[in-house]
Amino acid sequence: MIASPSSFSSVPAPPMRWDGWGDPGRETALSDAMLGLIRGALGVSGDPRPRHHPEDVDVPVSRLTDEDVRQLADIVGSDHVSIEPVDRLLRAAGRSTPDLLGRRARTQSAPDAVVVPGCTDEVARVLAWCADSDVAVVTYGGGTAVTGGLAPLAGEHRAVISLDMCRFDTLVGVDEVSHIATLGAGVTGPRAEELLAEHGMSLGHFPQSFRFATIGGFAVTRSSGQASAGYGRFDEMVVGLTLVTPRGVLRLGPVERSAAGPDLRQLVLGSEGTFGVVTEVSLRVHPIPEAVVSQAWRVPDFASGAAAVRRVARSDARPTVLRMSDEAETAVNLASPDAIGSDDTSGGCLVITRFEGRESDCADRRARVAALLTDAGATDLGAGPADAWAHGRFDAPYLRDALLAIGVGCETLETATTWSRVEALRSGVSTAVTAALGSEDGPWSASPALVLCHISHTYATAASLYFTVVYRLDEDDPIRQWDAAKQAASRAIVDHGATITHHHAIGTDHRAFLDSEIGDLGVQVLRAVKATLDPAGVMNPGKLVP
Amino acid sequence: MIASPSSFSSVPAPPMRWDGWGDPGRETALSDAMLGLIRGALGVSGDPRPRHHPEDVDVPVSRLTDEDVRQLADIVGSDHVSIEPVDRLLRAAGRSTPDLLGRRARTQSAPDAVVVPGCTDEVARVLAWCADSDVAVVTYGGGTAVTGGLAPLAGEHRAVISLDMCRFDTLVGVDEVSHIATLGAGVTGPRAEELLAEHGMSLGHFPQSFRFATIGGFAVTRSSGQASAGYGRFDEMVVGLTLVTPRGVLRLGPVERSAAGPDLRQLVLGSEGTFGVVTEVSLRVHPIPEAVVSQAWRVPDFASGAAAVRRVARSDARPTVLRMSDEAETAVNLASPDAIGSDDTSGGCLVITRFEGRESDCADRRARVAALLTDAGATDLGAGPADAWAHGRFDAPYLRDALLAIGVGCETLETATTWSRVEALRSGVSTAVTAALGSEDGPWSASPALVLCHISHTYATAASLYFTVVYRLDEDDPIRQWDAAKQAASRAIVDHGATITHHHAIGTDHRAFLDSEIGDLGVQVLRAVKATLDPAGVMNPGKLVP
Repeated sequence: MIASPSSFSSVPAPPMRWDGWGDPGRETALSDAMLGLIRGALGVSGDPRPRHHPEDVDVPVSRLTDEDVRQLADIVGSDHVSIEPVDRLLRAAGRSTPDLLGRRARTQSAPDAVVVPGCTDEVARVLAWCADSDVAVVTYGGGTAVTGGLAPLAGEHRAVISLDMCRFDTLVGVDEVSHIATLGAGVTGPRAEELLAEHGMSLGHFPQSFRFATIGGFAVTRSSGQASAGYGRFDEMVVGLTLVTPRGVLRLGPVERSAAGPDLRQLVLGSEGTFGVVTEVSLRVHPIPEAVVSQAWRVPDFASGAAAVRRVARSDARPTVLRMSDEAETAVNLASPDAIGSDDTSGGCLVITRFEGRESDCADRRARVAALLTDAGATDLGAGPADAWAHGRFDAPYLRDALLAIGVGCETLETATTWSRVEALRSGVSTAVTAALGSEDGPWSASPALVLCHISHTYATAASLYFTVVYRLDEDDPIRQWDAAKQAASRAIVDHGATITHHHAIGTDHRAFLDSEIGDLGVQVLRAVKATLDPAGVMNPGKLVP
Repeated sequence: MIASPSSFSSVPAPPMRWDGWGDPGRETALSDAMLGLIRGALGVSGDPRPRHHPEDVDVPVSRLTDEDVRQLADIVGSDHVSIEPVDRLLRAAGRSTPDLLGRRARTQSAPDAVVVPGCTDEVARVLAWCADSDVAVVTYGGGTAVTGGLAPLAGEHRAVISLDMCRFDTLVGVDEVSHIATLGAGVTGPRAEELLAEHGMSLGHFPQSFRFATIGGFAVTRSSGQASAGYGRFDEMVVGLTLVTPRGVLRLGPVERSAAGPDLRQLVLGSEGTFGVVTEVSLRVHPIPEAVVSQAWRVPDFASGAAAVRRVARSDARPTVLRMSDEAETAVNLASPDAIGSDDTSGGCLVITRFEGRESDCADRRARVAALLTDAGATDLGAGPADAWAHGRFDAPYLRDALLAIGVGCETLETATTWSRVEALRSGVSTAVTAALGSEDGPWSASPALVLCHISHTYATAASLYFTVVYRLDEDDPIRQWDAAKQAASRAIVDHGATITHHHAIGTDHRAFLDSEIGDLGVQVLRAVKATLDPAGVMNPGKLVP
C-alpha cells in the first residue's frame, strides 16, 4: 500500500544514498582482481543483486491525522513537515549491514512524518506537542547510525516522527581566546571544518562517518574520530551543550572542568535521543595545524606491536593518529591479499602514525615514536602506507556497498578493553564470529568468515578493537545470519569484561547487553533520568535504555 | 549536657588536629616580622585566642537507642561503633574557616554515632539499616572538607551517623600492564603513593589536602591536585568505581572510554556522599617519574602572564605543574611583603612550573616552556622559588591556623571559567570580597581585606582561579562576617558565568548556587538519581542537591 500524496510540500532529501553509503555519484566498483579473489574465497557468483528505487517501495500510510500535521505545521511552518512516503522512507534507517539488507524489502516501515525545525524553541514546541499527543520522536542527523538508533519505532505510542536537524547548520559563535566554538547540531563534519577554518580553527574530529554525520549525532553517540590520539574523542571535546527535552531546556557548560556535583554533560553525551534533542554543542577547537607528518611501520606481530603501541600511547610523543592492524588486516592494507585467511603472518602488523601540529614539533614527536617502535623491532615503511590510509580513510563504506551488491557481507563491530585484555579479547571475538557464521546449525548456509581487526583508539589504560567481518551472505535470511554473528560477538565481548561499544553507541543492537555493563541499578538510574526529562516516554523509544 | 559514657569502646581518633589543620605536632608559629606586618596592616593585637580541649565541649546526647547501637554493632562489630562524645565530636566538621571558628563554641553538634565498616558488604548492610531505621549517613574520609560536606545534618531523619571509611585502607589490586590500580576509599594520599611505589607506580594526585584526604573523598568531590597539568584531575584518573547505595551496589568501569550510553561514573564523581558510599576506586597510574625539573619565572603582569600560561597549557610541552600568582600573591610568595595591599605591581607575577618524567623529556619540555614564556617577556627566576613552593605546598593551612589564633581570618575560595573571562572574573571576585568585608553596613566591624589570587589549574579552554582572603576577624560574629564575604564572592562568580566551584565541591556552602549552574531541570535530574539510589533520603542530607 502506497500512501496517498500529501497536500504538504516535500522536504529536502538527505544527501546520502538511500540504500547504501555516501554520495550516490561516488559508488565504487570492485577491481577484477578483488572480484576474482572474493569469488574464490567465498564461493559467490559475483552477480549484482537487484536494488529498489525508493518510489517503488511500499510504505505504510502515515498514522498522523490531517489535524496532527496541521498542528505540527503551525509550529515549524508547512514547508517543514512532510508525510510523503519517500521523505519518510529516506529517514527510516541508518547504515548498518542489516539496515542496508532491509532496504531490499518490498515493504518497509517508516516514520509517520518528517518534521524539520528551525530553532531551539521550535524543537521544544514539537517535543511538547509529541508528549501531549502520544507521538514518538526519532531525531535525524546524518543518517549514519550503525546500531539501530534511527529505527522508526513508535513504542507504545500511536505514531513516530523523524525530527530532521538539518536546519541547525550554523556556527553559532566562536570564542577565539578560549578556543571554544558553538555549532548547531545539524552541522556535518566537513561543514564544521569549513566554518571553523574561517577563524583559523579546526575541530579535528574525523570518524569514518565524517562526511555525512553531524555534530548532534557525534555528541549523543560519543563518537570517536581517527585522530582521537591527538584531539581526543568527541565527548572529550564537548565543553557545553543545549538539550531540549519534553520538559524544557537543559543548558550545561561551557566551563571545561568543575566540581559542582556530577557532570550532567556526561549524561547527555551518549543519550542517543532518548532524553531529548541536542540542538547546540560548544566544543574545544584548536588552530589549524601547520604541518602533517605521516609515517607507517611494520611490527613483527600483534602481541609485540600492541605492547609497543601501548608505550607510544602513554608517551609524550602524542601521535595525532595511532592505529595498528592485525596480521590479516595488514595483508589487505598492504595489498598482499594472498595472505588473507591463511596462517601466513610473515607480513607482520601495520602501524599507522600521523602527527599534526607545528612543523618542528611534528618532526620531534615522529622521532620519539620512531625510537619507541624501533625498540620493539619495527621496520620503517615510510609515509606511503600512512598516506594511502589517509587518502581512503572515509571510503571503506563504499567498498562495503560494492561487496553487498554481489552477495558478500562486510560488517564492522567494535569494543574496548584494558590493555592487559586486548589480545584475549581479539582472539575471543574473532573465534566467536567465525564459529557463528561457519556453523552448520543455523538456518543459513555456513560461510567462511574473514575477520580483520585493528587497534583503532588508544588510551593510557585501554584500547579499542575494531573488527571487519567479510562473509558470504545467506540467500534466504541474511539479516538473521548476521544477527547470529553479532550476538556471538557481543556475548564474547561481555564475557571478556570489555565494553559492548567503544564508539558505535547502543541503539537497538546493543541494548540487551547494557545491563551487563552498568548493572540493574545503573539501568534504573538511566530510567529515572529519562522519566524526569521525558515522562511520556516519547523520545526514541526502544533505544539505549533497556 | 555531656553524654554519658557508652558501654561500647571508643574507635580510633582521626589523625588530624580537631580544631585546626593537620598534624597536631606541626603547628606553625608566625615569625616576628610577619606578626608585625599583620598587626600593622589589619589592626589586630596579635594576642592568641583561647582554644578548647574537645573533652570540655558539650555534645548533645546521642539520639540513637541502645538497640540501634546493638544492631549497628551486629553489622560491623562492637569495636567499630561508638557513641562516645569525643569520637562523635572529632568527626563533626571539616576544615573551612567557619568550621574552625565553630570549634570555639562551648556546645557543638555532632553525629549521633561513629560507625567504622570493614568491607563493602558491611557498608551495604549499614546503609540498608539506616534507610530502614530513619537514620542519616555522613561518610567520613580524611576530614578535610572545606564546603560543609561533613556537617552532621540529620535532615528530616531521627539521627545521623558518621561512617568512617578508615578501614578501607588497602591496595585492592594492580594491573601493571594496563596501569590501573584499585584502592580502598579510605586510603590517604601519602599511603596511596606508598602502596603504589611498591609496584614502581604513582598516582600523581597532590591537592593541598594530600596528607590527610582519602581516595573516596577525592572521587566524590572531584578533587584536583597541584600536578593536574601533568596527571589530570582526580576525576580524569578514575576508570572504575564501586558505589554502595541503600538500594544495592553500582559497579562501573574499568574500561577508560566507551560509547555504552551516558557515563555513569561521572554521576558518582562529585556526588558527595548523597547517592551512596564509594568503597573502591580504580585509577590510572603511571611509573614513578625518573626526574623532576623545577623552574620559576616572573612575567610582567597578570594579563600578559595569563595569556602566556594559556599558550603553555595548550602546548605539547606539558608541564606537570603550571600555576601563576597575581601581583599581590607574588609579593607574598617572593618575600617582598611591603608590596601587599599597595598598588606597586613592579614585582610582576610569579609563574611556577615543574616537569616530571624522563630526564631528557623534562629538559626538552622545560626548554619549550622557556621559549613560550620568554616570548611573553618572562624573566627566568631559576629553580629556587619553584622549589620553595614545592617544599611548602601542603603547609598553607598551618599558616591559616596561626593567623586564626591571633584573630586574623585567612580563607580560600576557588572557581574556574573560560580563558576569555579570567581577568574579569578575578577582578569581580576580588572587588566583591573586599567590599563585603570592608562594608560599614554589616553587623561586624569593617576590615581591610587582602585578596591574593593565582591561576591554579589550566585547561585548553579554561582555567581555575584560587583566591586567598586575609582579614581581621570580627570579635562578635566572625562566622556571619565570612558568610557575607563568601556570599558576595559566590554571587560575583555566578554573575560572571563561572563555575561555583572548581575543586572544593558543593557541600552546604555552594548548594544555593547549584541551580544557577545546571538549571532547575538539572536539579530535577539529580533529585531523580538520588531518589532511585537513596529513596529514603538518608545519604548526606542537606548537601549538594538543592
